[in-house]
Amino acid sequence: MIEAGAKPLAASLLGAPFPAARRLATVSCAPDSSQALAAAEATPGHSDRACPTPVVPNEAPASSSSPALRASSQLSRWSRARALRSGRRLGVELDRAAVSSAPPPVTKPPPTPPQQQEQPPALLHDDAPAVSMEDDDDDDVCVAERDAAAGKAIYMVSDGTGWTAEHAVEAALGQFEHCLVDRGCAVNTHLFSAINDTDKLLEVIKQAAKEGALVLYTLADPSMAEAAKKACNFWGVLSTDVLRPTVEAIATHIGVAPSGIPRSSPSRQTKLTEDYFRRIDAIDFTIKQDDGAQPQNLHRADIVLVGVSRTGKTPLSIYLAQKGYKVANVPIVMGVNLPKALFEIKQEKIFGLTINPAILQAIRKTRAKTLGFDGYGSNYAEMDHVRQELAHANQIFAQNPGWPVIGVTGKAVEETAAVIVRIYHDRKQKCSMPRISKRVAPVLVYDYTSEVVNS
Amino acid sequence: MIEAGAKPLAASLLGAPFPAARRLATVSCAPDSSQALAAAEATPGHSDRACPTPVVPNEAPASSSSPALRASSQLSRWSRARALRSGRRLGVELDRAAVSSAPPPVTKPPPTPPQQQEQPPALLHDDAPAVSMEDDDDDDVCVAERDAAAGKAIYMVSDGTGWTAEHAVEAALGQFEHCLVDRGCAVNTHLFSAINDTDKLLEVIKQAAKEGALVLYTLADPSMAEAAKKACNFWGVLSTDVLRPTVEAIATHIGVAPSGIPRSSPSRQTKLTEDYFRRIDAIDFTIKQDDGAQPQNLHRADIVLVGVSRTGKTPLSIYLAQKGYKVANVPIVMGVNLPKALFEIKQEKIFGLTINPAILQAIRKTRAKTLGFDGYGSNYAEMDHVRQELAHANQIFAQNPGWPVIGVTGKAVEETAAVIVRIYHDRKQKCSMPRISKRVAPVLVYDYTSEVVNS
Repeated sequence: MIEAGAKPLAASLLGAPFPAARRLATVSCAPDSSQALAAAEATPGHSDRACPTPVVPNEAPASSSSPALRASSQLSRWSRARALRSGRRLGVELDRAAVSSAPPPVTKPPPTPPQQQEQPPALLHDDAPAVSMEDDDDDDVCVAERDAAAGKAIYMVSDGTGWTAEHAVEAALGQFEHCLVDRGCAVNTHLFSAINDTDKLLEVIKQAAKEGALVLYTLADPSMAEAAKKACNFWGVLSTDVLRPTVEAIATHIGVAPSGIPRSSPSRQTKLTEDYFRRIDAIDFTIKQDDGAQPQNLHRADIVLVGVSRTGKTPLSIYLAQKGYKVANVPIVMGVNLPKALFEIKQEKIFGLTINPAILQAIRKTRAKTLGFDGYGSNYAEMDHVRQELAHANQIFAQNPGWPVIGVTGKAVEETAAVIVRIYHDRKQKCSMPRISKRVAPVLVYDYTSEVVNS
Repeated sequence: MIEAGAKPLAASLLGAPFPAARRLATVSCAPDSSQALAAAEATPGHSDRACPTPVVPNEAPASSSSPALRASSQLSRWSRARALRSGRRLGVELDRAAVSSAPPPVTKPPPTPPQQQEQPPALLHDDAPAVSMEDDDDDDVCVAERDAAAGKAIYMVSDGTGWTAEHAVEAALGQFEHCLVDRGCAVNTHLFSAINDTDKLLEVIKQAAKEGALVLYTLADPSMAEAAKKACNFWGVLSTDVLRPTVEAIATHIGVAPSGIPRSSPSRQTKLTEDYFRRIDAIDFTIKQDDGAQPQNLHRADIVLVGVSRTGKTPLSIYLAQKGYKVANVPIVMGVNLPKALFEIKQEKIFGLTINPAILQAIRKTRAKTLGFDGYGSNYAEMDHVRQELAHANQIFAQNPGWPVIGVTGKAVEETAAVIVRIYHDRKQKCSMPRISKRVAPVLVYDYTSEVVNS
């Protein structure tokens, strides 16, 4: 059996008692690797935040030098199935039909919620991430693997969507802008989502070892998180559990143990709550109200944004809508009166946007280029026109002192959104410190569980 | 000086050497508190992940019993200024004019980017979160503080937008759904953003101590993070630094020290990069293509979604657009032909959406109620019609086997988005393991720094 090497290793990393694990590891791995695992286990209070001394230096991936890695990278059926359909050569002879028909040796069965049984056979689930495999084997280039050498790799590994890890990494990388933007030091991020069994997990971590990647993971199942930690120690991969400290702090605080259930589990399906419908409604509303459409509905908005073209009203509206606010935006255009309805609604929900003229001109120039025109009304991106238009906007703002005016220069959409949301809640709640408060106890609008099972 | 008590404490928590800090704390605080600080400092390797034994039990906030807390809560100018404009009584006589005209004792000056100097005086910055203060003093109720007693409080404290902390907490709370949804154990989250000086920070942490809140913070400046840690230990507040482990792992990995500069700093202004314009364009495109509009532009989309009404095409499109994908969505309606253009574009970018009939009916019923109609074409939410329409959709999907069909039943928008993005990148990159790779080295489209300074 060609899988023999990988399976006991997987078992050894999956919570088997330490002596057994070490014995199995010795059987299946090169001596060096088993020593690494033993060493990792022997370290008391060993943290997965940072492996003390990464065994694999980033500059020299151990792919070709380590027999354990090279051998085991061919052993996972998951990897092999993918390799087969992508036309990659494995270097060993395999019965293609046997491999593709055999079920993958998953540690946990993939989630098959009862209500999806009625769906058509063409239906795809999370764990079968690609179709039309026939089209796939025309090219043997993995862009990511090819580009990996160009910079330091960061692997984000998740048993769910991976967006939490991605968000955290994006925010954390903001602390390295001085290197990333100005000095051009290259970092490549790689998001591996739906890593919901140990075989996939180990395959990713092995690949991380080869690429000299940092592994940042969010794995709800404690045994998966433990396996990730051990495997990273084992292969000398620097790693951190992104969400664990936060989950543990909350558990301590509320006195409830975390469920350990990944996002994709049937028992964690999205419920049809008030909050769910509120967000969907907010997005629907906001799209319909974009760019001054339907002024008769302005009174239904939570937030109304007013500003000249390219102050970011639309992306800002959308961002806020996703947080559940109904947003309308109204453009300020020279020679066009603002809709009368704007002055008849509650003025405290209106926000003005302004921007530095030079930046606005730069944005408009780029915009004009993208749209393929240079002479939209001939003066759209002319400095004089830009200044006049902003002066006109500021005049309107001065006439309406109740509207907060937010300068968006140099601000990301989410930053402006944060300012607006803070003012919005501050005005509503009147707390001694501005805060955005939410009650986390979703109200079920519709409980369909039994209905779905029986339908 | 009434501030005398608070200032040395702030200094003591802000990175002064330990003996001096302890001495200052002893001067300014009740003996109990100073002992707490000393104890926290004396603990070797003390982790801020979880204070070993919270001094303030969650059930019995120490607000009225601790003289240190009560006294210092009146001492911050920030809090006092807010209290004044909101009309709250302070319990001490204050010179209103003196307080409002004196600059707040910020440790770091608030960001005033050079290019914002040209902006009108009405302009608001992050650090001045509210205007029209005249309107503010009509009501003395802080909704959040009033509701705090109803559940366990989680404070999210950030020197930036706070969205990273919020995202992490939302994801982490998913591990407690069994308690939050089913058993109705109540948690209230409170987001404090733009906490960019130590006085604000200490004020928030004091309030957390009063409410028995958990404090989860993302503070880029190491001295602020250290102050948060010490203050939490000092006041017995359970706390965790949400992002620190991730930042430290990246620093170790790439061999570069984090800048320690908060998101709102002038030096971290959003740059006009290719990525910035790509995202803005994606959102603009996606909004214009919603609900089958402009089929002649389908070829310009990265991703095209096809499905019956209320399968979540619009929120999904918007979610993907924010990640930089140009998305078009095309509704399947009985008796209406799909646009011819749909079959002329690259078929590999088309995705079908399907859903369990019972759920779809439930969603449509709620939708119809929200829109205030019961008889939209009379059968919009009728089970027979819903089944027929889904069967029609499945027939179309069967005729187009190249379209992956995603079941959205019980999936959150971001989960479906994750599946689609995974397939999208998998088809493009053809790696042995499906991954979403990005090069983190933003290409500047327009460098306006000098222009702005001189304009």
